[in-house]
Amino acid sequence: MRIDCLQYANWSEKIFRQLREGQVDAIHVTIAYHEGFRETVLNFERWNRWFEQYPDLIIKGLRADDIDLARQTGRTAVFFGFQNPSPMEDDIGLIEILHTLGARFMQLTYNNQSLLATGCYEDYDSGLTRMGRQVIREMNRVGLVVDMSHSGDRSTIEAAEFSDRPIAITHANPHDWHPALRNKRAPVIRAVTENGGMLGFSVYPHHLKNKSDCALTEFCDMIARAAETYGARHLGIGTDLCQDQPDSVVEWMRVGRWTKEIDYGEGSSAAPGFPPMPPWFQDNRDFGNIEAGLRATGLSDDEVAGIMGENWYRFFAENFGPEE
Amino acid sequence: MRIDCLQYANWSEKIFRQLREGQVDAIHVTIAYHEGFRETVLNFERWNRWFEQYPDLIIKGLRADDIDLARQTGRTAVFFGFQNPSPMEDDIGLIEILHTLGARFMQLTYNNQSLLATGCYEDYDSGLTRMGRQVIREMNRVGLVVDMSHSGDRSTIEAAEFSDRPIAITHANPHDWHPALRNKRAPVIRAVTENGGMLGFSVYPHHLKNKSDCALTEFCDMIARAAETYGARHLGIGTDLCQDQPDSVVEWMRVGRWTKEIDYGEGSSAAPGFPPMPPWFQDNRDFGNIEAGLRATGLSDDEVAGIMGENWYRFFAENFGPEE
Repeated sequence: MRIDCLQYANWSEKIFRQLREGQVDAIHVTIAYHEGFRETVLNFERWNRWFEQYPDLIIKGLRADDIDLARQTGRTAVFFGFQNPSPMEDDIGLIEILHTLGARFMQLTYNNQSLLATGCYEDYDSGLTRMGRQVIREMNRVGLVVDMSHSGDRSTIEAAEFSDRPIAITHANPHDWHPALRNKRAPVIRAVTENGGMLGFSVYPHHLKNKSDCALTEFCDMIARAAETYGARHLGIGTDLCQDQPDSVVEWMRVGRWTKEIDYGEGSSAAPGFPPMPPWFQDNRDFGNIEAGLRATGLSDDEVAGIMGENWYRFFAENFGPEE
Repeated sequence: MRIDCLQYANWSEKIFRQLREGQVDAIHVTIAYHEGFRETVLNFERWNRWFEQYPDLIIKGLRADDIDLARQTGRTAVFFGFQNPSPMEDDIGLIEILHTLGARFMQLTYNNQSLLATGCYEDYDSGLTRMGRQVIREMNRVGLVVDMSHSGDRSTIEAAEFSDRPIAITHANPHDWHPALRNKRAPVIRAVTENGGMLGFSVYPHHLKNKSDCALTEFCDMIARAAETYGARHLGIGTDLCQDQPDSVVEWMRVGRWTKEIDYGEGSSAAPGFPPMPPWFQDNRDFGNIEAGLRATGLSDDEVAGIMGENWYRFFAENFGPEE
């Protein structure tokens, strides 16, 4: 089983076919960065058309057993998430509405302070806000997973501890392997995984040691060490693949509508665009490289199967439905 | 089994308990008159809170088998519909979104011309519009039922014939029994029922012979004659009960935001408010009166059971899911 817990591609029939070639059974797709509610609904509408146009390639994913159906019928189940809480605007009632429409992950912040928590680019992380705590309770109730990939350390630790259900960092790597601002320090990963949560390893070059030149063995050794430290069952893949996107999209991701200046995020004025992906992971057909690389590290077959998809499957099965 | 296919009450725990006392297994609730998309979502949010607050009394209805669950657990399944296409605004993609949120009926018009068809109060009925035909195709595809209760004759007949799936008049009576503008002429009822559709009988006094003074026997004899003419299996109940609503609500229903003047609709300047309900149907506890009245007409037990709920159940089972 192969599950990728974060992609934001410029979707097309070509990519849907590559998902099948790569035997990817499920993906978590970012369906909103800075979009408000109505704009997010338009994005759901666009996906509805794709599900109607490509019924032999993709199905909408709402529950873990949609992945079983996808596997039985040779398709990919597409689950949705937000990288910012902007789709819920200031209305806690929209959480259940968005869950009904298909949202299964929501980041409490995207780099900046939100109404709910502090992003990882702010100078000071003040932790969960009053509304943030209310929103986590409601997300727990309906089965919308808290994702802290772009949040600050304190906010993430507080969310992991406050939430009644496990939370996720869908796409980031350990900070002690590559000290990028977006990578996660050990106490953060520990707080998430000790509370039953998941870490998805990113292949986005800014999150990799030596960026686009990172070797597959380096990437897989990092995962093997994380398995020793945090337990393999809390680990998965979240590539952050942004295939076929123009550079205007990475600017939208970073800038949204919150500033009139350019914010380069993990890039720079000299290199403002998407960085080139490493040669061993160009697109969805390359998951076999990661799987082979993980096997070569000495991880057991069960551990590799867990990291490649079964751990996310179990997490989806336990966390996408109403609280019991 | 008891199903009421149209209510628009001022909802409260009191009414939810009366539904149980009246053994009403399912209701179709109007959740929007003139609301746009975002306002309709707010109305869904309000119902989500009621489902959370009163889990022992009501459940959200999406499929016919939710009625089975409601019956087994002593609750009422609440299905949703719109009396105007205003929630979909000018965006055909919102049809699937609204169906996902729980909408199961949508009127193509409410008295006036809409983007889709002509309402029953217009001087001239030009039939389905270009967009109206596209919208019916999409409603057919996802399983959102076309309701023509407030539409003109030509528009209704065209919708019944154009639609690939049966349509409904959820709340109206035969015009030849009581010639109100909102009641339906024989060719209209015939077009709907001959194409597998349903007519729900209204208890709203403006639709009754002698209005609030209509006798139960007159109402039930009218139904028995309709069963002879159109076939009992195409008939059900759609009371149009507007319990506990202030008169400001009937003004909203008639006027919305489309005029600055007052439109009295079926009322008059002398009697602008809600008319008093007949003594034999004051609220949801009175469905037994209708059932007893129908038995007294000589309709068979099967016919009465069909009209009281089993016909709507079958219609729900066949028409609320994706087209096969």
